[in-house]
Amino acid sequence: MKALLVDARSPLSTPPEPLFRDRMTTPLADPVDGLAEIVRQVRGERSLQRVVLSIPGLVDQANGVVIRSTNIPSLDGCHLGERLGGLLGVPVDVVNDGHAAAVAEATWGAGAGSDDSFVLALGTGIAGAHVVDGTVVPGAHGSAGELGHITVEPDGALCSCGRRGCLETIIGAPALRTAWNSAGGEGGPRSLLAAFGAGEARAQGIVFHAASALAEALLTLCALVDPGRIVVGGGLAQAPHALVTLAEGLVGERATFHRVPPIVPATLGGWAGANGCVLLGLQAG
Amino acid sequence: MKALLVDARSPLSTPPEPLFRDRMTTPLADPVDGLAEIVRQVRGERSLQRVVLSIPGLVDQANGVVIRSTNIPSLDGCHLGERLGGLLGVPVDVVNDGHAAAVAEATWGAGAGSDDSFVLALGTGIAGAHVVDGTVVPGAHGSAGELGHITVEPDGALCSCGRRGCLETIIGAPALRTAWNSAGGEGGPRSLLAAFGAGEARAQGIVFHAASALAEALLTLCALVDPGRIVVGGGLAQAPHALVTLAEGLVGERATFHRVPPIVPATLGGWAGANGCVLLGLQAG
Ligand SMILES: [Zn+2]
Ligand SMILES: [Zn+2]
Repeated sequence: MKALLVDARSPLSTPPEPLFRDRMTTPLADPVDGLAEIVRQVRGERSLQRVVLSIPGLVDQANGVVIRSTNIPSLDGCHLGERLGGLLGVPVDVVNDGHAAAVAEATWGAGAGSDDSFVLALGTGIAGAHVVDGTVVPGAHGSAGELGHITVEPDGALCSCGRRGCLETIIGAPALRTAWNSAGGEGGPRSLLAAFGAGEARAQGIVFHAASALAEALLTLCALVDPGRIVVGGGLAQAPHALVTLAEGLVGERATFHRVPPIVPATLGGWAGANGCVLLGLQAG
Repeated sequence: MKALLVDARSPLSTPPEPLFRDRMTTPLADPVDGLAEIVRQVRGERSLQRVVLSIPGLVDQANGVVIRSTNIPSLDGCHLGERLGGLLGVPVDVVNDGHAAAVAEATWGAGAGSDDSFVLALGTGIAGAHVVDGTVVPGAHGSAGELGHITVEPDGALCSCGRRGCLETIIGAPALRTAWNSAGGEGGPRSLLAAFGAGEARAQGIVFHAASALAEALLTLCALVDPGRIVVGGGLAQAPHALVTLAEGLVGERATFHRVPPIVPATLGGWAGANGCVLLGLQAG
């Protein structure tokens, strides 16, 4: 868990210098009490105006409720905003961590300067969010942006979502690991990308296949959503950016009528989510 | 060309009763003079407040410029709003006909009651527009909604856009005609759909293939855009709605995490575009 404390008078134009920034752990036995205790520690003698928590999982942001948490099952169904707000005596917002990270990347990161960015996080799963004017476009049921689960290879491998050939079955971290290990490679996606960088033929085939699938998904995104910029982040997009560079080239080659926007690597790294909480907190309060 | 004249005091909640509604032709030699003459005829002794023209093709709505017209090449590059406005002495708006039809369907047609509809027109090409709160979501370059050109069959047939296996190569009217004629059927898509309705096996295979491709494209739409309703119109969607009903069933069967909205046939028919002009005119003035 990451904790970030900023001065509420900070301007919204740049990420504020943190007063406190560190990694923390919360006891899983009673996560709400644990979270309150952490906030009290971080706050110290300062007066606190607002807390914004980003949670991996499904969140009802309007009501501050965790619908389904990816990592802390005991939070499922928890009215976290209300409970933590009661313990701390300040407003507590609960947001989805992917949305928070996307808003930060779009506003302060690689999307800065454009009011329309689609932000993609490549990792175990693939999260996407279309950020327009600093706000995630939610869709009618709050579930837009699922680029990881559009079909790229009909009748392809079985996906965690139950369908076949989703982008995630080709470019998700577990899929890359499996492909790499089946080809005789050792380790996971990072080792695969390192071997790709070293010009290893087996790695090149796998990375090209992944970049090609990503390019197809991005062409579909351009046709349907027409974003002003595409920002690619997450563990797999980090240096040496091989996958992003390769996919960008393939999108450019394969586009016909499409208006292809700049495709750029994310810049905020692992602190994007925490920065997004700061941004949402400054917007709200 | 269709002409529709309504009372500007009409409420926006329902399509107003037209004072005049008919089909007209305009001389292609000087289309702007011809259009002005038609408006004068339709107006008669009435005082006119605003003219809204929908054009098939690419339009710069903000500046009233026809960038590329599908049917009247002499209009390409024409500052139609300014020129026609000068001749008539009233404001003239120029809009894309697909957008006008989509706004009308979303507001007064099959999308009525929902503030979020994706409107699809199946014909020679496939046009799509996501209408939220009565306005088309344009995308960063004004080209969102191209559902007809997302890949459904990688390495499929060559599409008019230059790529392969787009939805349009399977479900566009020319593709259906080719498939039907190759199977020994006579006539075009209407004859195909009639044979499907009569239970003919060859027709069933082709229509099922088309509905299956449409269903795959709609699942991608749900994953990326998450619309509140899907309205399917255009010549191919008209009675007996076979394609829409079949596709709706397949989307329901194949959906996993997707939030599938109601998938309904359009209701305004061929006058949707003209109604959309009325709606946009009443909104503007
Ligand atoms: Zn999937
Ligand atoms: Zn195409």
